[in-house]
Amino acid sequence: MSSPFGSLQESLSIPQVTTNETLRELHSKDESYHAPVKPEIVVYPYNAQDVSEIMKIAKHYRRPVYPFGVGSSLEGHVIPTEDGISIDFSEMNDIIEVKEEDFLVKVQPGVTRTQLNKELKKYGLFFTVDPGADATIGGMAATNASGTSSVRYGVMRDQVRDLEVVLADGSIIHTGSLAAKSSSGYNLNSLFVGSEGTLGCFTELTIKVSGIPEHIVAGRAIFPSVDDGVEAVVSILQAGIQIARCELVDEPSIEKVNAFSDTNYAIKPTLFLEFHGNEAGLNQDVEFTKDIVNEHGCSEIEFEQDTAARNKLWEARHTLAYAFIHDAPGKKMMTTDVCVPISKLAGAIKHARKLVDASMFEGGIAGHVGDGNYHITLMFDRGNEEEIQAAAALNEEIVKYALAVGGTCTGEHGVGIGKQKYQAEEHGESLFLMEKIKQALDPESRLNPFKLVQLKN
Amino acid sequence: MSSPFGSLQESLSIPQVTTNETLRELHSKDESYHAPVKPEIVVYPYNAQDVSEIMKIAKHYRRPVYPFGVGSSLEGHVIPTEDGISIDFSEMNDIIEVKEEDFLVKVQPGVTRTQLNKELKKYGLFFTVDPGADATIGGMAATNASGTSSVRYGVMRDQVRDLEVVLADGSIIHTGSLAAKSSSGYNLNSLFVGSEGTLGCFTELTIKVSGIPEHIVAGRAIFPSVDDGVEAVVSILQAGIQIARCELVDEPSIEKVNAFSDTNYAIKPTLFLEFHGNEAGLNQDVEFTKDIVNEHGCSEIEFEQDTAARNKLWEARHTLAYAFIHDAPGKKMMTTDVCVPISKLAGAIKHARKLVDASMFEGGIAGHVGDGNYHITLMFDRGNEEEIQAAAALNEEIVKYALAVGGTCTGEHGVGIGKQKYQAEEHGESLFLMEKIKQALDPESRLNPFKLVQLKN
Ligand SMILES: Cc1cc2nc3c(=O)[nH]c(=O)nc-3n(C[C@H](O)[C@H](O)[C@H](O)COP(=O)(O)OP(=O)(O)OC[C@H]3O[C@@H](n4cnc5c(N)ncnc54)[C@H](O)[C@@H]3O)c2cc1C
Ligand SMILES: Cc1cc2nc3c(=O)[nH]c(=O)nc-3n(C[C@H](O)[C@H](O)[C@H](O)COP(=O)(O)OP(=O)(O)OC[C@H]3O[C@@H](n4cnc5c(N)ncnc54)[C@H](O)[C@@H]3O)c2cc1C
Repeated sequence: MSSPFGSLQESLSIPQVTTNETLRELHSKDESYHAPVKPEIVVYPYNAQDVSEIMKIAKHYRRPVYPFGVGSSLEGHVIPTEDGISIDFSEMNDIIEVKEEDFLVKVQPGVTRTQLNKELKKYGLFFTVDPGADATIGGMAATNASGTSSVRYGVMRDQVRDLEVVLADGSIIHTGSLAAKSSSGYNLNSLFVGSEGTLGCFTELTIKVSGIPEHIVAGRAIFPSVDDGVEAVVSILQAGIQIARCELVDEPSIEKVNAFSDTNYAIKPTLFLEFHGNEAGLNQDVEFTKDIVNEHGCSEIEFEQDTAARNKLWEARHTLAYAFIHDAPGKKMMTTDVCVPISKLAGAIKHARKLVDASMFEGGIAGHVGDGNYHITLMFDRGNEEEIQAAAALNEEIVKYALAVGGTCTGEHGVGIGKQKYQAEEHGESLFLMEKIKQALDPESRLNPFKLVQLKN
Repeated sequence: MSSPFGSLQESLSIPQVTTNETLRELHSKDESYHAPVKPEIVVYPYNAQDVSEIMKIAKHYRRPVYPFGVGSSLEGHVIPTEDGISIDFSEMNDIIEVKEEDFLVKVQPGVTRTQLNKELKKYGLFFTVDPGADATIGGMAATNASGTSSVRYGVMRDQVRDLEVVLADGSIIHTGSLAAKSSSGYNLNSLFVGSEGTLGCFTELTIKVSGIPEHIVAGRAIFPSVDDGVEAVVSILQAGIQIARCELVDEPSIEKVNAFSDTNYAIKPTLFLEFHGNEAGLNQDVEFTKDIVNEHGCSEIEFEQDTAARNKLWEARHTLAYAFIHDAPGKKMMTTDVCVPISKLAGAIKHARKLVDASMFEGGIAGHVGDGNYHITLMFDRGNEEEIQAAAALNEEIVKYALAVGGTCTGEHGVGIGKQKYQAEEHGESLFLMEKIKQALDPESRLNPFKLVQLKN
């Protein structure tokens, strides 16, 4: 294929510009079920200046750009839906500065979560957002990622103090400062976080980190029903107990894990807990928690403190996705991702379970229940039109239910391609505002077009 | 004065539309030193529909609108700089719904902080943001207010889950949902919070509330120097101790308080602390804190638990502003409000103290030091040009220092009129983005014009 970017390599002075088939293939997809599309070309910038030049060249050649972290997103976010440039940030992976005293770290966007945590450990610090996948900090900021520990530490948006951003016209801006809080100007940090590469490319991020907790206790509690488990969580929150993680896993998921790991966990709704704090405080929290879960019919609860025992205790939660994948070779995983007010969570999960049971799929439900966010994991055959339709229909019913009870169509994975059709229903008139913002900042729709919002031009 | 709004009263079916001189006077100013300007007319909407109609009438008559809470802001935010309509939200003061299980409350914008807390107490809940003044929730959201407890619970922006907003064209939108987190669409909540009435009028707010802590301990510690006090705070934070409030007050402030209250506090930099949590955890935190402050030269530390004793312990902090006001009858108060990275705080306060000592003013320095936010309180004569100039020059030096060390020109009070001149220096190129957003959402500059950003049309 002859590329119109013949002059790109020279004009950019970036060593890595490629049309290699394997690399284009690699940048054609994320971890989702959405159909791949190959980019025309893949570039690997080294710094903001490179990205700025890419934007100018993209404008010149009228090509869109598609920022790419490690492609672990789940709604087709990185797929080049039109001929254009995939910008891979893997060469921009320096941890620029750890500002211990300020609990801040400045990184390039391609730094991954585990890379960062390895470095921070030397300072007794850690980065709190944990989406499971070893995603890049740039990608996580772009999707407003969160995960198991957000109930305590907040989501990606809560951590971002400043972004260096290359805009559509190639100009380079900063969205914040190093101050812990500010009432100066419109808040651009939060606008860019979660913008999925549609408003600009992040080339540097200053983010909050936390001290590694003095003490960690993990717990696992078994309940007669999902309702009981969810109600126990509400009571724990209402008692002012600061849980650090709080995950509910339903019976069919536990069953799948048992089959996969040859374990013998009770096939019951199971709550996985974690507490961070000082020793005396945690002991009291653990005692309170025992009382509370017992009031909600808990039949068995255990706690562990040392790292190995804690990991063992949480194992069923961690192997969940693998258990489903392993059991369905050749199939694709779909993960729903709604978030509802916690008062509506028990009802939502019950509704979801009914839908799954009535469907052609086996599906496991697991949730970051402290936030009201839950996922159905199900495996389907992308070659089978009936399965595709059925999976899509199930997803849609889950979303409609969440919206009807005041929730959101995506708690953490983002909109990408997959959740666009629900934006009008979720946001109503304010979708016009989002379009106006996109229009104002990227009038030619150069940045990850047809993701998140679509301009009608 | 004959008003061009002859038909407003009938067309709006709002009972309260007034050109009464006293009421116009009341809406001509905030609590700051900025010069008052009377609005043409003051209206008191009852609901979003009223506000929507006001916006349409405002458009018809080409008049700007000026949203007004209780006017406690400090940078001229509510001053009608051009002939126009002051929209007073005091009639919209219903607490619409307390959603206990979701830790949410839905209120109208005119609800005040103490009104809300009185109601929430019945549910064992409280609203965490405490700016001292009994401001409205609408005003606090519009300035992204914070205060003493933000080090633990976050700022106003962290509490807002959903806003009902009337836009410049009269349309009514919602910016969020009831879900605890979301990655759906651009984050409009955070854009509107802190927008100072320049992007829309908030007519309903759904905000996070917290459980009243099981246990509260207050503390007061005395240090040989401001440096020691600030370093103690950094060490407390680094030890992972969750302070709920953490205020530093300098010697001249304590002196002023002693003179005002006839007290005998040691004239030393004093740290006021508060801890929230379970009893065992707090006891351990208190012990750790004692060790830490002693390592930093603390000469005296005391803790109290019951409400009356806690209030007594914090008294010097609470009477600070009154002590200055009382001592300077007829003068106006100016409060600086920068926020710097905490690693730069000791230096910033030392610099500030030198400036004040070299100036014609007495001035007290007090800070929300856990956030790196501090204020100089000084009294000046608004009739005396020399004092005006000197106060402005001092403020400017404080701001320049904060910006030079990576901080912000306003930690919590906002931009209003007073901090506009620093926006370009603080935000650089991203100020153009803010202007683009204002332009896109309020193209005719109908909403609180010449505040926060200025459109060049
Ligand atoms: C097994 C598994 C479990 C997961 N669990 C979770 C979970 O618990 N919580 C959760 O939130 N997510 C989860 N995810 C989804 C995924 O990990 C997140 O969406 C993550 O944030 C994506 O990061 P990435 O580096 O892979 O970004 P990519 O997938 O490469 O890109 C994601 C988006 O960010 C944009 N982008 C990337 N880099 C930049 C940049 N420098 N500047 C601007 N835009 C950029 C892209 O254009 C794209 O729109 C999971 C994924 C998998 C595979
Ligand atoms: C003694 C004193 C101490 C203070 N301490 C602090 C402190 O510690 N921390 C802090 O953050 N602030 C502090 N302040 C400042 C002030 O209390 C805050 O700025 C507060 O948020 C203002 O609320 P208000 O109801 O008085 O709003 P107003 O002053 O009436 O309005 C403030 C801004 O909000 C806009 N606005 C009001 N209502 C709406 C609405 N419904 N929709 C859209 N826009 C609206 C106005 O147009 C204006 O721009 C203090 C003030 C005083 C007098």
